Amino acid sequence: MSHALALAGRGLGRTWPNPAVGCVIVAGGRVVGRGWTQPGGRPHAERMALAQAGAAARGATAYVSLEPCAHHGRTTPCAEALITAGVARVVTAQTDPDPRVSGRGHALLRAAGIPVTEGVLETRARQLQAGFLKRITQGLPFVTLKLAATLDGRIATATGESRWITGPEARRRVHLMRMTHDAVLTSSATALADDPELTARDIGATHQPLRLLADSGLKTPAHSRLGRSARDWPVWVIHGPAAPHPARTGWAATGARLIEAPADGRHLNLTETFRLLAAEGLTRILIEAGGQFAAALIRARLVDELALFQAGCLMGGDGTPVLGPLGLEALADAPRPRRIESATLGPDTFTRWSF
Amino acid sequence: MSHALALAGRGLGRTWPNPAVGCVIVAGGRVVGRGWTQPGGRPHAERMALAQAGAAARGATAYVSLEPCAHHGRTTPCAEALITAGVARVVTAQTDPDPRVSGRGHALLRAAGIPVTEGVLETRARQLQAGFLKRITQGLPFVTLKLAATLDGRIATATGESRWITGPEARRRVHLMRMTHDAVLTSSATALADDPELTARDIGATHQPLRLLADSGLKTPAHSRLGRSARDWPVWVIHGPAAPHPARTGWAATGARLIEAPADGRHLNLTETFRLLAAEGLTRILIEAGGQFAAALIRARLVDELALFQAGCLMGGDGTPVLGPLGLEALADAPRPRRIESATLGPDTFTRWSF
Repeated sequence: MSHALALAGRGLGRTWPNPAVGCVIVAGGRVVGRGWTQPGGRPHAERMALAQAGAAARGATAYVSLEPCAHHGRTTPCAEALITAGVARVVTAQTDPDPRVSGRGHALLRAAGIPVTEGVLETRARQLQAGFLKRITQGLPFVTLKLAATLDGRIATATGESRWITGPEARRRVHLMRMTHDAVLTSSATALADDPELTARDIGATHQPLRLLADSGLKTPAHSRLGRSARDWPVWVIHGPAAPHPARTGWAATGARLIEAPADGRHLNLTETFRLLAAEGLTRILIEAGGQFAAALIRARLVDELALFQAGCLMGGDGTPVLGPLGLEALADAPRPRRIESATLGPDTFTRWSF
Repeated sequence: MSHALALAGRGLGRTWPNPAVGCVIVAGGRVVGRGWTQPGGRPHAERMALAQAGAAARGATAYVSLEPCAHHGRTTPCAEALITAGVARVVTAQTDPDPRVSGRGHALLRAAGIPVTEGVLETRARQLQAGFLKRITQGLPFVTLKLAATLDGRIATATGESRWITGPEARRRVHLMRMTHDAVLTSSATALADDPELTARDIGATHQPLRLLADSGLKTPAHSRLGRSARDWPVWVIHGPAAPHPARTGWAATGARLIEAPADGRHLNLTETFRLLAAEGLTRILIEAGGQFAAALIRARLVDELALFQAGCLMGGDGTPVLGPLGLEALADAPRPRRIESATLGPDTFTRWSF
């Protein structure tokens, strides 16, 4: 199962709206088939592994990181494919919460006389598929907030300088994170200040994440880097109902997709915005934005994980803070995420925190 | 020598104005004497080790973390004591920069026909004796700045709450740091806001550090915790020339010692203040103060080491920043200390940085 989970991880960022699943088929103590969900979410992991195993699947054990699907979509369900291939036993890490599956995959296998062991390495599997699980159960994507700051929590000096706070190792890690998320989202403030491209570079990237711009009033110019590259790699622009029509026309001409979301005054309603994105199939979104947007996401309780890069330098209280106001009434209300990873990246420190 | 350095460490915070030295005497492959500088700086480490070794010192090797002294003070020099005891060889970690010694200890030994090996584990020895070295060579104490903040660099919420940001493990480490520094210094802003006692508690403390209050205008009331406890453990109050006389009288009545230092306008001239403290013999000072005072120290380039405690929580940009303004003109001017230690303390992270 550990092997199946590792294979599943290869699909992260590329299988949406489907989960990233891994499958290993073992016969006579030998691995005869390995598969993972292919880009775009199809074929499923079980199909890939069965195809590789061929006749060797008969009498074998299949390890799958998620319950095999039971619904007829473009193809017959994977549970049926496993039965047809004649596997003798199936081991899964977790039940698929998708209402079209939700235990029916396991039931189909058992009805065919195949013993099923469930819940093996379930915690690891749930972490891996947190995006898919959250989309299915809550109608929201899994949100990773990336922040990069100095030791005293600043992102720019009083004079506004902010480039190259962290080193190349940290930058590579950010680009890798872009690849393992379905989409990277930035705010208009960051788009206007830094004009980012939000692509995964210098790491031998095999694909690019979808790029999202949250810009209530469509203030970001269509000739920004995002707009200019929208025909090379997809860009979705989420704007509010009051976005001016010339700006809509300008952005539409770049090849970007425009999505209208509800707004609260001048700002997008973030919860509704993320509901829309989940409804579009997005399961994992990386946020690379400024302090005001980051604080708004935290206030709206939309952040699942914080990826914090800290540079070993100090900028002082006259620098720009990494987070905007949280409006805490009491210290007891301060978000206290749990540290789940800690690493040294060249001169910088990287920690991951789960909310 | 590693053993001698470990013994030297026991004296940190208690030997000023003298260095914390360790000495190990080895005869026939056995340790026959061990010593370290005693509280108050006397007897010296070599005396303690020689007394323990007795007649076994004859023909033995003495390992000393600092060049033995060569000047006649209250007692005969340690170099002479080693010669008299008949040691056959001396190994030292570094030359004593004190102009009264500075190679003369080594020379005395060699003149008596005793071979001397110098510079063994010198880097570690210099780190250990950084306070003494800085006082002797620059006329300034070694300054450790302690900061405790949230992940986003805040020390209090917008509503002013600041207690218990870090957990008990971090607190214990702070109290241990108080014990290994000659003195703990706070500013009037912190004294007025938090009324700290600055003693080492809950760690089986065997002694208390000298407590220093930097208060240009003597605004801290004499009935504060520092004032009320000044007869139990010493307190020195450093004030400016404009400090009102009633406040001076009030503080003098607590048993605290008053020291006048030059001021620049409303604030103490920090460099001159620290020069005075070094002249008084202080070698290692721990700063526990607020963001304004911390930033002023950094701007004046008086900080040698940063001890940073980070709690795994977020307070937002409306909270109080851990550092006041540094007034950086350019990002390239941002202080970039070197990380020298990194540890997890319960829910918190502890890192040490060398400037």
